[in-house]
Amino acid sequence: MTETYPVTPRNRVKREPDRGSYSRDEIYRVLDAAMLCHVAYVLDGQPFCTPTLLWREGDVLYWHGSSASRMIRQLAQGAPACVTVSHLDGLVMARSAFNHSVNYRSAMCFGTARLVSDPDEKLHALRAMVDRFYPGRFETLRPVTAQEIKATGFIAMPIDEASMKSRAHGVGEDAADAGHEVWAGVINLETRIVADAPCPRMEPPLPRPAGLAPLSEGARLDEALLHLQRLYEGEVGALV
Amino acid sequence: MTETYPVTPRNRVKREPDRGSYSRDEIYRVLDAAMLCHVAYVLDGQPFCTPTLLWREGDVLYWHGSSASRMIRQLAQGAPACVTVSHLDGLVMARSAFNHSVNYRSAMCFGTARLVSDPDEKLHALRAMVDRFYPGRFETLRPVTAQEIKATGFIAMPIDEASMKSRAHGVGEDAADAGHEVWAGVINLETRIVADAPCPRMEPPLPRPAGLAPLSEGARLDEALLHLQRLYEGEVGALV
Repeated sequence: MTETYPVTPRNRVKREPDRGSYSRDEIYRVLDAAMLCHVAYVLDGQPFCTPTLLWREGDVLYWHGSSASRMIRQLAQGAPACVTVSHLDGLVMARSAFNHSVNYRSAMCFGTARLVSDPDEKLHALRAMVDRFYPGRFETLRPVTAQEIKATGFIAMPIDEASMKSRAHGVGEDAADAGHEVWAGVINLETRIVADAPCPRMEPPLPRPAGLAPLSEGARLDEALLHLQRLYEGEVGALV
Repeated sequence: MTETYPVTPRNRVKREPDRGSYSRDEIYRVLDAAMLCHVAYVLDGQPFCTPTLLWREGDVLYWHGSSASRMIRQLAQGAPACVTVSHLDGLVMARSAFNHSVNYRSAMCFGTARLVSDPDEKLHALRAMVDRFYPGRFETLRPVTAQEIKATGFIAMPIDEASMKSRAHGVGEDAADAGHEVWAGVINLETRIVADAPCPRMEPPLPRPAGLAPLSEGARLDEALLHLQRLYEGEVGALV
């Protein structure tokens, strides 16, 4: 695979191109730091923007939904889709309204979605959806039933084109801003794991599995998810 | 205005309808707790999913972009759009793969976007984009120029239909899960404000404005944004 995605009219970063990149590695880093994506698809000319859980295997994005859902049924037909992941990292407060901004990382991926219909690929997807986030958990769970597999729809979308965009610096300023006396700065944001709520039906209470260590209280979610993806990539050969 | 949005084939919550609502108040609470939304729109049959900053005035959603951007140019023509806001609140780890879930709040809003072209409405939007998040800040900034107003595109979308969906409880379980011995629980997530990075060009350093108090270190971003929207709604009459 090449190190960058092709640049076309569809994925080209037109505005502030210095914030953009087509690097596979940089795009993967944005995707892999997230669990939540937004999928845009079209049904009878109407756009829909659906939030869902996302994971990646190589250059293929996966997400799931009920087999009967509108999104899954529409995308199963091989529809064009756009999958976007965004992280809001800070509020950038400049000396002029125009230079206010935010620090962020986002990735937009374009491709044609398809339904995962092969039973082995489907079981693999179900396992991946658990183990990519919670290492080794799948085999500790109550086994899946045929009915559960049937009721779950998985969508796979090979990434045809993608781009990422990010801003990660201080206050921007132009000549007219210089010296204007107002507080300016970046208010930083972080999403972290807080205290667990163990299920009260564990009798006796069981210890938290060691595989969940990256998701311990205080961990940054984006860093934990990136780390877990690296673990998953290293171990996926042994798991399937 | 009615207390709920009309329910149509477009916004009806089909899967797990018990998690859904069409209540204006509940939908506003999801929207107002966010700064970031994802906008789905269609260009020549291709869906795009663009992250951008969102704010709300009554039943109208506003977002902005460069006047020359693809999104602004496409939506300026009165195109159908879907605006989605999502909050990921927790990872729900059940005793079976099928019952794994997440706690979340999301709102999907449908409407027809239009470009804000009236100069007064545009200046109002520019002010709102600052003051809705940072109370009273606009008038403290270096004044906007005609060129800046020209370069900024604002989109307004009255909400025609909307729905929200949320999950905010513990581990789900079915009969087959009961008694299966594995750690189960909810790993909770929060997005909070961390230490500021004041602009190093403030000479001498200025104090942080009192209006930013809701965005102080340690505050939850969603709660702060909801509070700031309430403040803005109370004060908007005095500001414009």
